[in-house]
Order: sequence, then structure tokens, then C-alpha cells
Amino acid sequence: MQIIRHPAEMTAWAKEQAKAGHRIGLVPTMGFFHEGHLSLMRRAGQLADFVAVSLFVNPTQFGPQEDLAAYPRNFERDCAMVEAAGVSVLFAPIAAEMYPAGFSTTVAVGAELTGQLCGASRPGHFAGVATVVCKLFNIVQPDVAVFGQKDFQQLAVIRRMTADLNLGVEIVAHPIVREADGLAMSSRNTYLLPQQRESALSLSRALALARTIAAEGERSTERLTTVLRDFIHSFPETEVDYISFVHQDTLQQVAEIDEKTVIALAVKIGGRVRLIDNGLVL
Amino acid sequence: MQIIRHPAEMTAWAKEQAKAGHRIGLVPTMGFFHEGHLSLMRRAGQLADFVAVSLFVNPTQFGPQEDLAAYPRNFERDCAMVEAAGVSVLFAPIAAEMYPAGFSTTVAVGAELTGQLCGASRPGHFAGVATVVCKLFNIVQPDVAVFGQKDFQQLAVIRRMTADLNLGVEIVAHPIVREADGLAMSSRNTYLLPQQRESALSLSRALALARTIAAEGERSTERLTTVLRDFIHSFPETEVDYISFVHQDTLQQVAEIDEKTVIALAVKIGGRVRLIDNGLVL
Repeated sequence: MQIIRHPAEMTAWAKEQAKAGHRIGLVPTMGFFHEGHLSLMRRAGQLADFVAVSLFVNPTQFGPQEDLAAYPRNFERDCAMVEAAGVSVLFAPIAAEMYPAGFSTTVAVGAELTGQLCGASRPGHFAGVATVVCKLFNIVQPDVAVFGQKDFQQLAVIRRMTADLNLGVEIVAHPIVREADGLAMSSRNTYLLPQQRESALSLSRALALARTIAAEGERSTERLTTVLRDFIHSFPETEVDYISFVHQDTLQQVAEIDEKTVIALAVKIGGRVRLIDNGLVL
Repeated sequence: MQIIRHPAEMTAWAKEQAKAGHRIGLVPTMGFFHEGHLSLMRRAGQLADFVAVSLFVNPTQFGPQEDLAAYPRNFERDCAMVEAAGVSVLFAPIAAEMYPAGFSTTVAVGAELTGQLCGASRPGHFAGVATVVCKLFNIVQPDVAVFGQKDFQQLAVIRRMTADLNLGVEIVAHPIVREADGLAMSSRNTYLLPQQRESALSLSRALALARTIAAEGERSTERLTTVLRDFIHSFPETEVDYISFVHQDTLQQVAEIDEKTVIALAVKIGGRVRLIDNGLVL
């Protein structure tokens, strides 16, 4: 496996692959890999001849009060894991080459997709995501890119940006990978103290509860939201950021559940660890 | 010469050229061609194997009070002119394919480059320009793109955006092409009434005057601005939008002229026709 640090070198590799008629699959990540990431890489391997994984903790998608400095990192372990997953290139640029002096361009998707859910509590986050993914697509020139469905709003934003800017990259969504107890895998799970683990399960259990109640015939998202909020707050140290029922494509709030309704949750555990989860209700 | 209407078809043509190892040169335009455009196309022909010209009157770079509907158009004449100029492809998409329903992505360059000069009097203009040029680069996939130096701030914005988003396109600036009397060529010159032609010359003559005074030793941009404003307003029906002395790369205002100082002018003629011109002072 090649480790590439410089954008120009990454693009040179990509152009060689294109010339040889090889398809490139990209998995953009912020590192600190878990089984969720590895499943994205394996999926990319099924869809392309060569898989490139980008590892870049992108400063512009973190807010000033967020966990950029503390975000978990372990480069050596990450290298070993992607190598074992059959990845051809690990692209790990430094911030000064991604955002050199004078950098001043922003790619932003409109408020229809970015003004609610995580966009409401993390202003600027999705512009940071759209900008860095646009750059990564131009640097790595993939035919296909695989993203996890856990970052459900991010996926909608990237699909929109890719179509709108004619980036010509096929976007593939991969299902959420969970621990045996149902917790959605996330690099941020490592922030949880042992006694907070049970509270972190409030998200996936709230999804299950919503499905059970909906299966019994409930369609009102207002009534469901009240039940779920109480349910989540019955776990210690939990604070609901949002409980939203939205259309899977438009991300617009719905009053009544149907087959296209996704429930999306964000919960802060111990005032410190913000976790998200989501899924179709029916 | 091929006329291509659909973005996907344009990209298919571009990929074929790339596969064959051919270099593509792009000249993005809004049509209604004059000798200025043709010189850009000839320059592109020297730099690439095949030249593509895009013709798209981009609605998102016009303000609500601006001349989008009235912008001069003559598709048949334009086709004949580009064909004679040796262009391989004229890419002329319709707005509904460039901005389909649900479109919501904006590419914007920061206020350091877009907050002053034309950006001050045309809010949103440069975001419209950056977004459409980003799209055109992704659709046409040129190796090199040629822009006129008349749109001096546009050139700086596009250079910045191209570098920041790793678009991998070489940006070439082509000198301003002028009528015999000095008027910078522009599609908007066709708006001028015969009696306003003399007033339109106030721009190029003001540039010449600035150079004469600077050659005599004047370095204060404040004193020069006063002289030039009075000079331009001595022509009938003229109204200065801005007279700015800026660094050629950063576009930041300067108090004293040096070898990197560009004087940039925007003048409204008859309250209706807004013309621009620029050049190095020394």
C-alpha cells in the first residue's frame, strides 16, 4: 500500500489509473478506523479496481467550540488496518497543503439541506464538509465514492453538491455498522466513559422504540417525538440535541410518517460526547 | 465544428479527447462574439489540440436589476464566427440543464477578492461566476482555459477558485483587445447610442492620463483618483462607479503606485451602460 502525502502526487497516481482504464473508488475519512470504515473500504473494493482512502481531520468542518484538537488519531494503527483491508493508497495530506496561505473558497449547499438537523447545531459544518469533499474528489478523481449512512445529512449534502457541480462521481451509501449491542460505530465512541456506554445506547433503542410504536399504527411525528424525548432522557447524562422525522431525500420535516420517513437523532452524553443515529421508521 | 447542448454529451467528448492524449483548451463566454473573444480562441488554439468554447448567458451572475434579459444574443452569427476561428466544439447548454430543479450549491471566493471593485456594486456576481466556471471546468475538463484581462477581478477570482478547489486547470490571461480608438471590446458596447461613444472613451483615456501623470512622478493614488474622476465626469453622461488602484494579485487598495499597481475603472454611461477597463499604471 502506498501512503501519499501531497495532493499533486495523489492526482498523478489517479491520472495514471485513468489512463490504464482502471476505476478508482474513494472512501473519505477522518481516520481512527473502526469496522464501519472497513466495511466502506470493502464496499469500494467491490465497485472499483483500486481503492483510495483519504485520511484528513478537516479543520474547516469543526466549530470553534468543537473537538478538533481532541479528535482521536492513531496513524500507525490506521495504516495497518487499511493495508489489511486491501486498500491501494492512503492519502493523508497535511492541512497546510489542503488550505495554503490565501485559501478563500467555500462550497456551500443551500439551507433546504443544511439549515436543520446537524446544520442547526453546527453552523458552517456542512460548508466545511462540502468544500473538502469537492477538493478530495478533484484530487483523487474517483469514479465512485462510498459514504456511511450514519452521516445521513452529510450524504444528502454530498449527493447534491456532486450533482450540482457536475463532479461526475457516483455516490454510494453504505448502511450503518453497529456494535453487537446496537450502538452505531463512531470514532467519537472512544470518548465515552464506561458508565456512559449504557446511555449511548439510548439512540439505537429510541430508533427501535419508534419502529415498534409506528408498527402499531402511530403516524404522528409530534406524539412520537414526545415519547422518544422522554425515553432518551430516562437514561442518565443524556441531552437531546434533536429528534427529527424527515423525508429521506429532501430532509424536510414531516408531520406524518410514511415509507420515506427517516428518524434522525442527535444526543449529547455527559455534556461532552455528541452522538448521532438514524434510520427509516417503517 | 460540433455544437453540443447537453452537459453529459460534452463530458463524453472531453473524456474521449483525454483518452486519446489530446489537450483541451476552453474559452468560457456569454456569446455575442467580437474580436476580443476570437483572440481568446486563437490563443487557446496555440495552447491545446482542440478548442471548446462555452456559450452560456449565466443567469446567476446577473443581479435582479441587471441586464440578463437584454443581454445581446445572436446564436447564428456566433456559430459562424467560432467555426471560422477553428473551434472544435461550441458548448451551448440551456439554463434548465445547468441549474435543474433542486439546484442549491454555491462556490464563493472570500471578500478579500470579491468584496471590492465590481463585487461591491454587483453583490453575488462573483459567486455566480465562480459557480458556473467550476461547473464548466468539470463538464468540459480542459487542460487550459483562457480568460480576458478586461475582467480583471473575475480572473483573480477564477485563479483563486481553481487553485483552492484543486481543479487542475491552467488559467491563462489574455490582454485586452481594443477598438482602433482605444475602447476596450465588450458585448455591452452594442448598448451605446452613437452620441455616447465619445463618453465611452473616457475609460481608456483616463488610463492613459493616469499613466502620463504617473510617468511624471506622481505616486499618490488619492491625488490621481481626484484628477481622474474630474476627467471622466468632463465627458457627457458619465458616472464613475469606481476608480481603484489595487495590487495586481491581491486586489488590495494601495496608497502609493508601484510596478504591481493596476488601475481599475467602472463607469456608467447614460445611466444604463456599465463599462469597465483596467491596466498596469507603470
